[in-house]
Amino acid sequence: MPKIVDHELRKKQIAEASWRVIQEQGMEGATVRNIAKEAGLSLGALRHYFSTQDELLEFAMNLVIERVTKRIKKIALKELPPKEKVLQILLEIVPTDTESMAEMEVWFSFIAYARYKKEGFDAQQDGIYDGIRNLILYLDQEKILRKNLNKEIEMERLYSLLDGTAMHALLEPKRLGKDKIYELFVYHLDSLCVDEV
Amino acid sequence: MPKIVDHELRKKQIAEASWRVIQEQGMEGATVRNIAKEAGLSLGALRHYFSTQDELLEFAMNLVIERVTKRIKKIALKELPPKEKVLQILLEIVPTDTESMAEMEVWFSFIAYARYKKEGFDAQQDGIYDGIRNLILYLDQEKILRKNLNKEIEMERLYSLLDGTAMHALLEPKRLGKDKIYELFVYHLDSLCVDEV
Repeated sequence: MPKIVDHELRKKQIAEASWRVIQEQGMEGATVRNIAKEAGLSLGALRHYFSTQDELLEFAMNLVIERVTKRIKKIALKELPPKEKVLQILLEIVPTDTESMAEMEVWFSFIAYARYKKEGFDAQQDGIYDGIRNLILYLDQEKILRKNLNKEIEMERLYSLLDGTAMHALLEPKRLGKDKIYELFVYHLDSLCVDEV
Repeated sequence: MPKIVDHELRKKQIAEASWRVIQEQGMEGATVRNIAKEAGLSLGALRHYFSTQDELLEFAMNLVIERVTKRIKKIALKELPPKEKVLQILLEIVPTDTESMAEMEVWFSFIAYARYKKEGFDAQQDGIYDGIRNLILYLDQEKILRKNLNKEIEMERLYSLLDGTAMHALLEPKRLGKDKIYELFVYHLDSLCVDEV
């Protein structure tokens, strides 16, 4: 089935080109035209994958979800103390370097677009809310969650804390750098977990 | 000085018309043309206040800051136990009704616009960050902040929690309603403050 192989290869090539353009020029520069140029393809060939700026944004958003999910799965498979594992996963979602900043920029653009333009938009579709719920359940299963906590509220609190921090890291990168974000999540996890012996 | 009086009155009239349009039609419907119609003014008269869609958005954002600041000042002057006062102020910022949802929508549109279009944009200009710092200092002055807390990190944590919750309340209003938001902030403040005697 050479046609299917071609399709998958082409898709990967476009995804990588899109990503380079987004990183170098931001979402403002991520036009169908610029991506075709970067991928060395004709506009016609690219339009097979997305024909409008909105479709490009959805394509980029799916790319971000794929990338973040891949990194998180990798951490989940590591041999790490539970609290450290949760910390590393949280730090994969909040933008702290050029790559994750570009991801957050796509995410922010997508939310702003989807809120006004997309019918039946569901903000939870990025999977973050379910992921956060699972992190709290995981800490509980590992028996390191403090006894007096309300798990339901802790899920909501961590979800708000994560997205708020991610947004501030994108909008105020000078004030809220990598070290401060690390310190904040260590502090929060310490407040949820029993002291280590 | 009748000219100055005219100017102030006109501005108030336009602000109120803008607000009605934003509440009824969202930021998508808040065009210079629609606002002129609602205010019963000519496009020319309105263009004295804002001539482009971007200037209208800045006008609306200033309107939101004015409105929220006014409500917070009113609460600050009330005779209330410190923890209750802080709770009420937080609940004025997070969108929980039609009016504050419209405010948050303006805020979100402004952030998305300002991030890409405005030179020298400072996300802290809405005053929320400084306000949050002051709330933590206030709880400390009132001697109800727990002893073992790191105040600097608590300021950052509350700031993230507030903006994350505000964003989720805007994007997922069905999942995160008024009652849940209330419960979340009571829970968080309880974790910061000493138990009442």
